Amino acid sequence: MVIVGSASWYLSKANKTQNQVVADNPNVSLNNSNLRYANIAYSEKITLSKGKGVTKQAASCIECHAQKTPAIVQDWSKSSMAHAGVSCIDCHGVSKDNPMANQNCPGVKGTNIYVSKMVSPKTCAKCHPNEVKEFEESGHARAAFHLALKPDQGLIAHEDMGAPEYKDAVVLTGCAQCHGSIIKMGPNHEPTQGTWPSHGIGNVYPDGGVGNCASCHFNHQFSIAQARKPSSCATCHLGPDHPDIEVYNNSVHGALFAAHGDKWHWGSPPGAWIPGVDYDAPTCATCHMSGVNGLQPTHNVDMRLKWNLWAPISKERTGGYETAAFEYMKTGKLTAGNPLAGNPKGPQEARKEMLQVCASCHTQSFANNYLAMADKQIELYNKYAHAASEMINTLEKKHLMMKDPWADPAFRTYYYMWHHEGRRMRQGAVMEGPDYSHWHGVFQLQQSLRILQAIYNQRMKDGKIDPNQIGGVGMGE
Amino acid sequence: MVIVGSASWYLSKANKTQNQVVADNPNVSLNNSNLRYANIAYSEKITLSKGKGVTKQAASCIECHAQKTPAIVQDWSKSSMAHAGVSCIDCHGVSKDNPMANQNCPGVKGTNIYVSKMVSPKTCAKCHPNEVKEFEESGHARAAFHLALKPDQGLIAHEDMGAPEYKDAVVLTGCAQCHGSIIKMGPNHEPTQGTWPSHGIGNVYPDGGVGNCASCHFNHQFSIAQARKPSSCATCHLGPDHPDIEVYNNSVHGALFAAHGDKWHWGSPPGAWIPGVDYDAPTCATCHMSGVNGLQPTHNVDMRLKWNLWAPISKERTGGYETAAFEYMKTGKLTAGNPLAGNPKGPQEARKEMLQVCASCHTQSFANNYLAMADKQIELYNKYAHAASEMINTLEKKHLMMKDPWADPAFRTYYYMWHHEGRRMRQGAVMEGPDYSHWHGVFQLQQSLRILQAIYNQRMKDGKIDPNQIGGVGMGE
Amino acid sequence: MVIVGSASWYLSKANKTQNQVVADNPNVSLNNSNLRYANIAYSEKITLSKGKGVTKQAASCIECHAQKTPAIVQDWSKSSMAHAGVSCIDCHGVSKDNPMANQNCPGVKGTNIYVSKMVSPKTCAKCHPNEVKEFEESGHARAAFHLALKPDQGLIAHEDMGAPEYKDAVVLTGCAQCHGSIIKMGPNHEPTQGTWPSHGIGNVYPDGGVGNCASCHFNHQFSIAQARKPSSCATCHLGPDHPDIEVYNNSVHGALFAAHGDKWHWGSPPGAWIPGVDYDAPTCATCHMSGVNGLQPTHNVDMRLKWNLWAPISKERTGGYETAAFEYMKTGKLTAGNPLAGNPKGPQEARKEMLQVCASCHTQSFANNYLAMADKQIELYNKYAHAASEMINTLEKKHLMMKDPWADPAFRTYYYMWHHEGRRMRQGAVMEGPDYSHWHGVFQLQQSLRILQAIYNQRMKDGKIDPNQIGGVGMGE
Repeated sequence: MVIVGSASWYLSKANKTQNQVVADNPNVSLNNSNLRYANIAYSEKITLSKGKGVTKQAASCIECHAQKTPAIVQDWSKSSMAHAGVSCIDCHGVSKDNPMANQNCPGVKGTNIYVSKMVSPKTCAKCHPNEVKEFEESGHARAAFHLALKPDQGLIAHEDMGAPEYKDAVVLTGCAQCHGSIIKMGPNHEPTQGTWPSHGIGNVYPDGGVGNCASCHFNHQFSIAQARKPSSCATCHLGPDHPDIEVYNNSVHGALFAAHGDKWHWGSPPGAWIPGVDYDAPTCATCHMSGVNGLQPTHNVDMRLKWNLWAPISKERTGGYETAAFEYMKTGKLTAGNPLAGNPKGPQEARKEMLQVCASCHTQSFANNYLAMADKQIELYNKYAHAASEMINTLEKKHLMMKDPWADPAFRTYYYMWHHEGRRMRQGAVMEGPDYSHWHGVFQLQQSLRILQAIYNQRMKDGKIDPNQIGGVGMGE
Repeated sequence: MVIVGSASWYLSKANKTQNQVVADNPNVSLNNSNLRYANIAYSEKITLSKGKGVTKQAASCIECHAQKTPAIVQDWSKSSMAHAGVSCIDCHGVSKDNPMANQNCPGVKGTNIYVSKMVSPKTCAKCHPNEVKEFEESGHARAAFHLALKPDQGLIAHEDMGAPEYKDAVVLTGCAQCHGSIIKMGPNHEPTQGTWPSHGIGNVYPDGGVGNCASCHFNHQFSIAQARKPSSCATCHLGPDHPDIEVYNNSVHGALFAAHGDKWHWGSPPGAWIPGVDYDAPTCATCHMSGVNGLQPTHNVDMRLKWNLWAPISKERTGGYETAAFEYMKTGKLTAGNPLAGNPKGPQEARKEMLQVCASCHTQSFANNYLAMADKQIELYNKYAHAASEMINTLEKKHLMMKDPWADPAFRTYYYMWHHEGRRMRQGAVMEGPDYSHWHGVFQLQQSLRILQAIYNQRMKDGKIDPNQIGGVGMGE
Repeated sequence: MVIVGSASWYLSKANKTQNQVVADNPNVSLNNSNLRYANIAYSEKITLSKGKGVTKQAASCIECHAQKTPAIVQDWSKSSMAHAGVSCIDCHGVSKDNPMANQNCPGVKGTNIYVSKMVSPKTCAKCHPNEVKEFEESGHARAAFHLALKPDQGLIAHEDMGAPEYKDAVVLTGCAQCHGSIIKMGPNHEPTQGTWPSHGIGNVYPDGGVGNCASCHFNHQFSIAQARKPSSCATCHLGPDHPDIEVYNNSVHGALFAAHGDKWHWGSPPGAWIPGVDYDAPTCATCHMSGVNGLQPTHNVDMRLKWNLWAPISKERTGGYETAAFEYMKTGKLTAGNPLAGNPKGPQEARKEMLQVCASCHTQSFANNYLAMADKQIELYNKYAHAASEMINTLEKKHLMMKDPWADPAFRTYYYMWHHEGRRMRQGAVMEGPDYSHWHGVFQLQQSLRILQAIYNQRMKDGKIDPNQIGGVGMGE
């Protein structure tokens, strides 16, 4: 039997695609109508008011909210949206049949106008169709599915102390604020307390829209300048298991941003944000998204990635575009997506594009040499991961793993090895964060492997689990 | 017998008010004359020079110190104090009978002028009486008492390796720089080396003044702009046990500060620092202190807090104003204060006020929904804490805890659960720092509880402590 | 037998100078011709073009690279170098007999011009001889030797899983990016992939130059403003084992930088960067390098240091100037240098100079009192270190340490005590980072000592190592 969230279940994921995991998982049906959270067939029909300036109706929203929620209106007034004449009602106005529609705002009650607090990417796509499509082609688009399809519910099931009434709290104050939430409608045509508000990038909206543009372009300025700053990505890309902002701060790139960033031109148009002219060193957005040195700007953050660095075993990204959001929008099925999504032309093209970014500021041999060593460091990580998973597999086969994985020092040690230490080692290596490649990375892994070996030796020798072994890795990395 | 600093002693604090702890503690007498460190009856009589410009005497201080400590004078020259004609002598000049008075400065030796290096809040209160009073009504005011009344001396006793000559070093380079110091006068009418200088907010001055205004309004600019920035609070509110600055940086609020903060208007007057106009996102000061959306500005940082989030078990703040500083100033008694001090109208009023802050930028349901889940997350924490403390209590009763708590993996695991992991879980939840609510919080707690359970099972089964269990939680969180 | 990298080997370093360690180490010959990596006798003869403006030849480099690597040229155009008429060829042009010389750039192929991608400090010294000499007199100059002389190869040998093909990856994505690399030339007169590019400060160049000026003055702006910001030092001085940037951010100095730094004058000339006028609070550069309050500016960062704070046992710096780089440049021998290098007039002079920095902003007694307590905290650390090393020494003598040190919880606990926790305690104390002096420092040490004691007791009582003790300190501090 495979226990969802058990060691063997986690391990099995390393060796197959996530779609297979879902198919194998008795608790998740790909066609489960419970998973049809939203009206995916819905297409927003309200069109944008034309011309500069705002209509009388739009002005009444603005005037009232300038009293009720003044900072929202102030924020908006600084935005490009405001300059283009796009105001509250253009994004929050929805058709009566939109699943999110209501008239709870006194200003529209009884009129033929319906509004929604939430703005789905289906609405954003009315003006920004390419950006939304590119986003949907990226791994960001399946961030919430990842939670809904149990991998983290496996974890959450251990965290809520078996009291499901706390599950929503764990998710909404934690996981969902990065991964996003499958937002459900509750009483009074409002979203439910346990599924909204979520800042997470993978939000699935009741109208079937997938993704949260405001996760990076914060309400209500929607500023390109803000989204280009590392702090925007850092609301999620931080911490013990993927310290991207810490790695960036450790890098020369980050040090240049810290030293000179306040003088850079942050607001240049997409595709015309020029290294050396507008800024001296890349931010996250530069390398992963920007139109630099002849490259097209993109909202598919996987396009320039050669490797999958978060999985238990790192593989080259051979999967083409991410398809989970499209599948969901077509069929209503939540699938686990494609962990090897990347550049549709393959990992070598991805690397080539990344090197094209580097070439603005570095000679070819500088960048090539460095990334060759980063590739080697990833291979070395894989050796650690294989050595560890072989021990766990053997222990599993011999029934020498505990039923409750989080009580088991062997499982915990293995989990920290790939999920915490191993990601730090790999991400530190590719992004030039030496403290993470080494001290938080391989230096920890070499110790963890030895600890796992000691547990393994004891269990294999004695033929049973020593319940008094209370150590193992983990705890506060 | 209750050993101060032992597991049972720590635990006992969870279930009573701190005043009771003090009363029970044989080492601390509420009426001990040793605790009468200062002349609490002293009232500073020197009055401020009137009018703009500085007197001849004031000018001579300025001129000499522009040579001796030039940056102090430069700092001051940028301050509102300087613009108001308040100079060195107005704050550092004291009556001859002030316990801090001396003539060690060659410029005043032999005159009728007495000075003190230290400036007590009794002096600040001459111009800022409301701010000082509000501060005294807040938990900040008992920060140094907390140390003096042994809870941390219990810890320090373990840290100084039994060599009391190192106690002052541990305290002055550590605890006191945040908590503050009971400053004692030594030879030559100067403060003693082991009790001064302290940046800590709870300093108790030899003239009986409680609190250190310069802890937030740094010498010698005393800038409101500087105090409003998150970095000011972060000199103390950081780290493994209360990572408030890290939680803030993880939040969308912090990301907006990082993105746009250099453009904000930081120097607006108290009560007229307007969200949306002067700044786009709150800092610590905004939510906890500022006059926002109709609220009165306050220096009582507890006024808008519903919960006590630092205690082993979280309770609603039902205690009204903090009284420890007033009690001290009246009677000279050091008391442990009121851990449930908050809003005198109770926790619901505190929450209402906080929601009033949120309402500048968020709809009611957005803020309500989010904080409802944060409340649930706190309840879930309490379940962890109760489960852990029940095990510890049982082990205590069965004499299965070690005498030296810091050698005992059971005690250490329990301590980290509430003091490190549990605070991160709770503070991460209320301030929207998902990495702290989850990865540094509940994710750690679920593992720690299992480790404590394993230790508990072993001890209960064997009826003795396994001294070879060298793991447990802790170490570098 | 002493195993390089074993516990006893690590320990032995605490009690002798590093030169002795090298002499004792059978794997390192002081006179080993393998260590003669570079042409140390080489002296770059190309002289700088005179006058403002650039020559025709210089212009052709600039024009072509403005196309090929545009941001490099843009960066340079903002530099003082550009204003002084110093362009690409002045630093990258080398004599034909320079070991780094090649004509791989199509623009010079077949001409009498030779170039090198790398710029050695021998070139920098043509215009900045004092800065280079001061650097060479500092501990920074031996940062790469430290790696080459095995201490970290001992560690790396454990990290590469016994597969030496990964050694370069571990070093180049980790160690070398701070410590620097002994750069070797490979095919086509280009540096080898495993030894370049390295951002590390101690780079040893093929022409015998020691040190990497661009480690702090980043290519290609070489900006004094950038180098003065704490972020520049923080590319290396961070993390669990020497969290200097974290300590700084925890200090009032760092909080003032965070609050006001964007308004400071960063570009004042060396020796005329005035506290109070140009800035309100020191950065790393101010205290350790700048010409403040009558002190000479220096690139010898050890000049104002009383203590060695990174060693297993802290001693006063009585060693005078660092000599390793000079020795290398004279003899080609790699030596481990002088861990007690500091101020040639001794530790009291070093402290006096540091206090002279403090005196710009603080009274004498403020700084004296504080540093007296920091000194005491260092003494207390030494007590911990002695207690721990005595236990390890006894276990070694009784053959009760494991052969593989990183598998041994006793060794790991000892290593974390001095290398991680102990440095945090000491550096937190001297730089006023109370969270590091206490919570990340002595609070951890007191627990670690108890854990080591438990292991020690078990081994001494049983006369053998319990292989099931899987805990101990470490893992993710």
